[in-house]
Amino acid sequence: MNNIQKPHILVCNDDGIEGEGLHVLAAAMKKIGKVTVVAPAEPHSGMSHAMTLGVPLRIRKYSRNNRFFGYTVSGTPVDCIKVALSHILPEKPDLIVSGINYGSNTATNILYSGTVAAALEGALQGITSLAFSLTTYEHADFSFAGKFARKLAKKVLAEGLPPDTILSVNIPNVPESAIAGVVITEQGRSRWEENAIERNDMYGNPYYWLNGTLMLLDNELHKDEFAVRKNYVSVTPLSCDLTNHGYIGTLKTWNL
Amino acid sequence: MNNIQKPHILVCNDDGIEGEGLHVLAAAMKKIGKVTVVAPAEPHSGMSHAMTLGVPLRIRKYSRNNRFFGYTVSGTPVDCIKVALSHILPEKPDLIVSGINYGSNTATNILYSGTVAAALEGALQGITSLAFSLTTYEHADFSFAGKFARKLAKKVLAEGLPPDTILSVNIPNVPESAIAGVVITEQGRSRWEENAIERNDMYGNPYYWLNGTLMLLDNELHKDEFAVRKNYVSVTPLSCDLTNHGYIGTLKTWNL
Repeated sequence: MNNIQKPHILVCNDDGIEGEGLHVLAAAMKKIGKVTVVAPAEPHSGMSHAMTLGVPLRIRKYSRNNRFFGYTVSGTPVDCIKVALSHILPEKPDLIVSGINYGSNTATNILYSGTVAAALEGALQGITSLAFSLTTYEHADFSFAGKFARKLAKKVLAEGLPPDTILSVNIPNVPESAIAGVVITEQGRSRWEENAIERNDMYGNPYYWLNGTLMLLDNELHKDEFAVRKNYVSVTPLSCDLTNHGYIGTLKTWNL
Repeated sequence: MNNIQKPHILVCNDDGIEGEGLHVLAAAMKKIGKVTVVAPAEPHSGMSHAMTLGVPLRIRKYSRNNRFFGYTVSGTPVDCIKVALSHILPEKPDLIVSGINYGSNTATNILYSGTVAAALEGALQGITSLAFSLTTYEHADFSFAGKFARKLAKKVLAEGLPPDTILSVNIPNVPESAIAGVVITEQGRSRWEENAIERNDMYGNPYYWLNGTLMLLDNELHKDEFAVRKNYVSVTPLSCDLTNHGYIGTLKTWNL
């Protein structure tokens, strides 16, 4: 396979250009294609599908160990995809991969995730896109996740995906030998129990800091959060279409 | 109906506490219930489901014409809902209404919308929630929108909505006499043609400013963007579940 025939893969994340998972993912993709990295200059967890409208964006080249690694954009993960496609890449990429995120993006977290949003933005722009997340914030072992990302990327490059649909992959943070298998899942209904912290600053004025715990409300292996807790790799097809199609018939009877 | 029996309605938006559509919506809701307004201190268009994790949030009281109007939160629309439910409201509200937004939230825009996200966050927290948007950025005439919001709020307070589902309403910016009717719609496939502006700053360094035009790619009255362009009020049921359920069977045959 010569260079011309290699697929061009855009790699992004929401943890920012220094995120270890981004470097693992880029290395994995370099084994199967030509890679361009475009990532936020700073971490942007919890930014969902936010884009930057009020201020301009900057693109900068980023090197590590004196070698060019990729580009930073001074905005959100979705900004990165938009700017990469309009101003950095000379051609439409064959694949966009986002991650590997620190922390699972299952259930309710899908709505908050910048990692997932970057892939959804790719799908909106007609590009096959994948999101990868590891189920931990610390002591991350990305080795199996990188291998699985490469395998899945090769598969979707061959098979394609339906319009406006991505695959979001959540990978347990365990050694490969402890992985129970791979399951195709649905978005679960597990959600955050809010626990915002209220404190006073040095002037005696209160402030609030969002915090919480993802409560397991699923108990079936075909639900994403339950699957990863049982050490399965969870692969969920997500769509950009939020319509609750099943409720349209009822609404029509309201005669608004 | 005495005060005790009145439904408690939380009003939010993404254009910020000074947004005219917020004041119209609050006034409309005051005719049917007890209202608490909690809105971003600053405009937060395009913020989607972003939440603020890296810095603390402040809650402030906001008055207009020397009368208390509501609370501001120094964050995103989703932050407002979270903080309102955890720290401002003494009870769970009966209804959350978000808007009235300047600019339609149809088709692809649904993913970027802070107005829609605030309502989705309400649904995630088990509260009946509605989002309202007017199809203009200028010369806004909110009078019919306010009336329709009141009518729909009364209806959903009586009927309820399915779990994790909101209604997103887009209202043409025309006089009531020009409204063609109300249609129940699906999220359309119209999307942005990206047109980021590239300029040099005073030091000769380039910057990029996201910009674009929503291209009409729908041509059926049951698609949101097409409906509003034909002067229909568009009511779309949106779900917090992004799973592409129809693709799960195919994925299982991949034998990952």
